[in-house]
Amino acid sequence: MDFDALFTEQLDQLKSEGNYRYFAELERKCGKFPKAANHAEEGVRDVTVWCSNDYLGMGQHPKVIGAMCEAVERTGTGAGGTRNISGTNHDHLLLERELADLHGKEAALLFTSGYVSNWAALSCLGSRLENCVILSDAGNHASMIEGIRHSRATKLIWRHNDVADLEAKLAALPANVPKIVAFESVYSMDGDIAPIREIVEVAEKYGAMTYLDEVHAVGMYGPRGGGVSEREGLADRITLIEGTLGKAFGVVGGYITGSAALCDFIRSFASGFIFTTALPPAVAAAARTSISYLKESKIERAQQRRQVARLRAALDLEGIPHMHNESHIVPVMIGDPVKTRMLADYLMREWDIYVQPINYPTVPKGTERLRFTPSPLHTDADIDHLVNALRVLWKQCALARAVA
Amino acid sequence: MDFDALFTEQLDQLKSEGNYRYFAELERKCGKFPKAANHAEEGVRDVTVWCSNDYLGMGQHPKVIGAMCEAVERTGTGAGGTRNISGTNHDHLLLERELADLHGKEAALLFTSGYVSNWAALSCLGSRLENCVILSDAGNHASMIEGIRHSRATKLIWRHNDVADLEAKLAALPANVPKIVAFESVYSMDGDIAPIREIVEVAEKYGAMTYLDEVHAVGMYGPRGGGVSEREGLADRITLIEGTLGKAFGVVGGYITGSAALCDFIRSFASGFIFTTALPPAVAAAARTSISYLKESKIERAQQRRQVARLRAALDLEGIPHMHNESHIVPVMIGDPVKTRMLADYLMREWDIYVQPINYPTVPKGTERLRFTPSPLHTDADIDHLVNALRVLWKQCALARAVA
Ligand SMILES: Cc1ncc(COP(=O)(O)O)c(C=O)c1O
Ligand SMILES: Cc1ncc(COP(=O)(O)O)c(C=O)c1O
Repeated sequence: MDFDALFTEQLDQLKSEGNYRYFAELERKCGKFPKAANHAEEGVRDVTVWCSNDYLGMGQHPKVIGAMCEAVERTGTGAGGTRNISGTNHDHLLLERELADLHGKEAALLFTSGYVSNWAALSCLGSRLENCVILSDAGNHASMIEGIRHSRATKLIWRHNDVADLEAKLAALPANVPKIVAFESVYSMDGDIAPIREIVEVAEKYGAMTYLDEVHAVGMYGPRGGGVSEREGLADRITLIEGTLGKAFGVVGGYITGSAALCDFIRSFASGFIFTTALPPAVAAAARTSISYLKESKIERAQQRRQVARLRAALDLEGIPHMHNESHIVPVMIGDPVKTRMLADYLMREWDIYVQPINYPTVPKGTERLRFTPSPLHTDADIDHLVNALRVLWKQCALARAVA
Repeated sequence: MDFDALFTEQLDQLKSEGNYRYFAELERKCGKFPKAANHAEEGVRDVTVWCSNDYLGMGQHPKVIGAMCEAVERTGTGAGGTRNISGTNHDHLLLERELADLHGKEAALLFTSGYVSNWAALSCLGSRLENCVILSDAGNHASMIEGIRHSRATKLIWRHNDVADLEAKLAALPANVPKIVAFESVYSMDGDIAPIREIVEVAEKYGAMTYLDEVHAVGMYGPRGGGVSEREGLADRITLIEGTLGKAFGVVGGYITGSAALCDFIRSFASGFIFTTALPPAVAAAARTSISYLKESKIERAQQRRQVARLRAALDLEGIPHMHNESHIVPVMIGDPVKTRMLADYLMREWDIYVQPINYPTVPKGTERLRFTPSPLHTDADIDHLVNALRVLWKQCALARAVA
């Protein structure tokens, strides 16, 4: 059987839809963020990265870099085993303590990524809690969707951020069935924020456990970077808070926090936790440094907010439409994969601005977009340059401007 | 609903079976491997680690450490995005080229772990190749099993390493159905090696694709560390070779290699590849250094083989039974979780020897064991010390000795 032909056929289909993906090949440069070198056919050139999820630039923070190098030199480059078989290091436990403290929980558990933490925790809970029903927000991330799918628990999808719909679905379930309400705080592609308080209240009313993904909020929201649940004073009412070490904290890895029993349960039964090499102790040390730094320091968050507001105001001034939301994410809707790619290519080529076209399956077809993530390290001049480029582009392409 | 009570109930069950897991808390120390500090209740003490999967001690190799620190200082601590959205760095592509070359394939694709590479690749192939049937060796690793389960493709389990059974199952399938034969080279818990040539020949006869996990072989087998498939000169006949960067290469991460179309297919469609932060460029740089070093250097492999043979001979001399196999893995069967844990506790407490008790679900119930992995850095004195401890222990416990 000609397998390559089968693969090529499906790839050709992607290409004909305009959904085939070309990855930009970057070279991050410490101390230069958000600038990076871009390797293109025409050569290597510095560009300004406008779509990074190193939201606060912590990936180049001297303390985080110092912690990582110190730990590499002290402990080596890897953990050398799964968590059970020689892979648990002192640095992992220190990080788990730091994470439990960040969210005010009894315990935390580290995973190789945020994807794996969602997938492993939800598939473990859904498959091991008898007759469990998982109520999943329609906008949930792929890692949660796949975890729920894998668990084979009954899944009910409630309308995105629609608490009335959630309540209707909860009310229709028998009281004695274990229920998990799974949702995010900041949704990464639209940048909207869940009505966490209302969700928690409804979940409590029906005795459901709450599972909150704070991947796009940790480090950035709440007085200590504990996420939107910290900002709203709701962390203690949420059963499980999940997060990543790879976005605002600038490293890599994922985690859950919750009660000691909950974390021990996932530790003991989740395949995706058990059967994999632990993160390098040096990654844990770097992440811990980043988290504890952001617990204290507020300038990064304040400056990020300033630059986000500044970009939004500048876009408004030029009449360039962008989705309104309460977060740090600035989506500019295009609505077509080919056009989105063309715009991104043009920005890269002509303006040294790198923003990846966002297409299916990351967003639904027809909602393709450019998604800008201003960091505290984007200067006012960077913003002016971006908005100027978009202004010229909007004129050239005669795309509809927002009506004031 | 009292979720903690539900969790505790299942944990209590584990405890009553003797299957509850206690992780040793280590501090790896660069330059000291296989010694590490163990944090126990009684205090912190140096122990010899006998169960690490940092098989060759590459996690503390000066070149690998140097490469990681250099790259952390050059690029920072994280990738800052998914591979599609600003996360692809020059170091990732260099590593993928190195991996393709290692296995003599057109292309390679990097994942956050070996677990994720298996899970993501198999679930993508199984779900996207219409009517696909996956023929899975009964001894396959959890990550493959979960990937196959997730794909919802038809799964046929063939008896472990039994080519006749595989052929019978292949022959019973219609010719026009896509078939994937999934297996490992070195099975990590028994240390036995698959009859790769026979498997490949049968797969070819029935037009099946071959999927080979070389996680416990890469770096250690074959003249350049390309695994058992390299040693046997069979790599070019295997459709997909999967491996890890977290064991013999001493870092963290996973990968697949194969045709350009195959890797592009997984890159374009596999959820576990797409929706997750890329590995830090510094991890990629360290892994690449380790791989390219082991392509040239043969002393680590030779010295590992010597120490494995030496341990086996010493065990034989004392009549301590161990499973015979062709690999670097030395399992000593105990057959009961409580006894295995007791022996391991005693070795740690009285002899400063750390070997994790291996229990369910890592191995089937009733096959609990101690699993020793001699590295090139275990000295002859380390081996003597271990065998002496086991000799005393075997005497004390009056466990059955092997009959000569
Ligand atoms: C909402 C959400 N959850 C989880 C993840 C996965 O986290 P990680 O990148 O650490 O795998 C992502 C994105 O990557 C995400 O957007
Ligand atoms: C056979 C096999 N495949 C895959 C894996 C997963 O690799 P990683 O540790 O890189 O996640 C393991 C063990 O961890 C394994 O034993």
